[in-house]
Amino acid sequence: MNGFVYDIPTKVYFGENQLGNLGSELHRFGKRVLLTYGGGSIKRSGLYDRVMEELHKADMEVFELSGIEPNPRIESVREGVAICKEQAIDVLLAVGGGSTIDATKFMAAGACVEHDAWEFFGAGAKPIERALPIVTILTLAATGSEMDTAGVVSNFATGDKLGRLARPLLPQVSFLDPTLTYTVSRFQTAAGAADIMSHIMETYFSTDPDLYMLDCFMEGLLKTVVKYAPIAVREPENYEARANLMWTSSWAINGFIIGGKRRAWSCHPMEHELSAVYDITHGLGLAILTPRWMEYCLDDSTVDKYVQYGVNVFGIDASLDKMAIARESIRCTEEFLFEQLGLQRTFTDVGIKREDFALMAQKACRYGAIKGFKTLTPKDVEAIFEMCL
Amino acid sequence: MNGFVYDIPTKVYFGENQLGNLGSELHRFGKRVLLTYGGGSIKRSGLYDRVMEELHKADMEVFELSGIEPNPRIESVREGVAICKEQAIDVLLAVGGGSTIDATKFMAAGACVEHDAWEFFGAGAKPIERALPIVTILTLAATGSEMDTAGVVSNFATGDKLGRLARPLLPQVSFLDPTLTYTVSRFQTAAGAADIMSHIMETYFSTDPDLYMLDCFMEGLLKTVVKYAPIAVREPENYEARANLMWTSSWAINGFIIGGKRRAWSCHPMEHELSAVYDITHGLGLAILTPRWMEYCLDDSTVDKYVQYGVNVFGIDASLDKMAIARESIRCTEEFLFEQLGLQRTFTDVGIKREDFALMAQKACRYGAIKGFKTLTPKDVEAIFEMCL
Repeated sequence: MNGFVYDIPTKVYFGENQLGNLGSELHRFGKRVLLTYGGGSIKRSGLYDRVMEELHKADMEVFELSGIEPNPRIESVREGVAICKEQAIDVLLAVGGGSTIDATKFMAAGACVEHDAWEFFGAGAKPIERALPIVTILTLAATGSEMDTAGVVSNFATGDKLGRLARPLLPQVSFLDPTLTYTVSRFQTAAGAADIMSHIMETYFSTDPDLYMLDCFMEGLLKTVVKYAPIAVREPENYEARANLMWTSSWAINGFIIGGKRRAWSCHPMEHELSAVYDITHGLGLAILTPRWMEYCLDDSTVDKYVQYGVNVFGIDASLDKMAIARESIRCTEEFLFEQLGLQRTFTDVGIKREDFALMAQKACRYGAIKGFKTLTPKDVEAIFEMCL
Repeated sequence: MNGFVYDIPTKVYFGENQLGNLGSELHRFGKRVLLTYGGGSIKRSGLYDRVMEELHKADMEVFELSGIEPNPRIESVREGVAICKEQAIDVLLAVGGGSTIDATKFMAAGACVEHDAWEFFGAGAKPIERALPIVTILTLAATGSEMDTAGVVSNFATGDKLGRLARPLLPQVSFLDPTLTYTVSRFQTAAGAADIMSHIMETYFSTDPDLYMLDCFMEGLLKTVVKYAPIAVREPENYEARANLMWTSSWAINGFIIGGKRRAWSCHPMEHELSAVYDITHGLGLAILTPRWMEYCLDDSTVDKYVQYGVNVFGIDASLDKMAIARESIRCTEEFLFEQLGLQRTFTDVGIKREDFALMAQKACRYGAIKGFKTLTPKDVEAIFEMCL
């Protein structure tokens, strides 16, 4: 069992009516704030006005960058970096989901260096030693970006969608108000839940030995997603469901559950290639891949983890044959994703074609084989893609 | 469901061989360190020499205060405060269990004010607005003081043992090396486990509605204690058991599990009176009280929580009658504490006498009735004490 460093100092205001604390929190970092957001839904919902009211009360000087895309582009990051530099920004305030927050993270880092922000990504990536402070107001429970050190950015010029982890990217303060997710569509709620589930499973399904207490926590998080995501899809204004999903999204990926395991993910690197080429919703791509990846990795050497998952998350009878429990756990996962959440089931459903498999599989393995739960070469990735058709 | 603020920025180095980071972490706060510890077991174990080696490598100026008692006394706190002031200490390094860390917290706070440190406690307590930075090296998994804002100090002159919570008391950095707990005696291991269990149950057994995901986490923590504490008692050098207990001890009380609930504890205020008068080990007092408190609070209005606990922690058959499950869950708790951990079962066993019940019950309710899972007046507390004989 390996040691680890736990270091997640993000302060979180959770619940309704916490925005009254926004001004004083921002003020700690300075007076010049860059407000970033996406396509304008925060204007329609009234959130924009509430935020501006708090910023004005706190006497902040506000600069804005809107229009950040889902699967955010490097061009938006560059635009933000330019504003930070030109306007001597003190603190960035991201209002939105994972895409807005991810892009904002690299604006904050890019503001502290001379080189282009795309050089933070890929082979030979430049270090991220500093970033301007980041505050977030979350409007979608999915990526966990509000409390982690990671972000993903797309470059359609090169056909790449790349992630990066760095401690300075961790938000200083995040506001998590479940009622802000009431307006999230059924589809985005479901895709967000699939993303949360995948974050947990990428860590849970591992051959590294680790702490039982963390496995118990992951099973609790998975049970929470399984219990509340279908409720949030059916009843978008169910506070209990939205609150449970929101806090679960943060803890699924903030680094606590990984303990001393290697960070060795499988479905995420595969999915990033799908959405780099097809621009599909990340959580939908993960939902299609996950059960097939589970099926592909199941053998005598891995079956025990499926049994633990099936019994503790889905309540499958522990007295059954191990392989039978494992197969039933995959069936339960499929039923949850495709029937209870109503997500599309196959690549065919979403228009992903075999002709792109070879290139996407090569790119998924750009740094060598994916050394996750099972080691996956490009050939293995192609085989999993085939199962998704 | 209430909102809450999550704010636990303690950085934790977990595992063996992490002390190489001690010097650089202390250095962030200055060069003059006050090293605090207890009765000298850290000298016998060699830990003292390892720590001093790191401090000298980092070129720190070291001052020392040893002899901090179990159930630490206000006199030790005063002594530490005096050293901090006279020597212009920059940072405090507590090496030990909860008693050493608790006392050190109030030295760090006392160093920043003019008044006596005892004025931080009791009715009309003075505010704690600042404290010197605190770093800890934990040698006993029990109180969670390494990652929380709380501490308890005894004043034998007044017969009081009082707790205090304040954000500046939160350690900046803590080193959690499970191998440092290998030398903890069977009794202290068992009593520490009972303390951890009580921290979780004080929050879990509540009538406040809160997040399902936090209940799941608490059940996972309780399962971890139930699984690993008996192993640690039997096999003191079992790394897996020691590691699970150690990380569980921190998360049992650092504030994460409380979510939006009121902090409304019951067994702790009762126990503090036992150990204030009899100086018994805190965890042992909690072990004796907890099952009787559960029995006393069980009725139709509370039974559902016992059912949830019994089914999810002890695997009791969910199809049984609710009240039967609740009673069985109390029996399982007793079996765990008194048979598997081998702790003493009654007040009679540890020499606590009826003649002190009335005064201890009055003091346990010094701020009014205990408004926990059930409201407890002095009469209720006396009745629970009677059940413990």
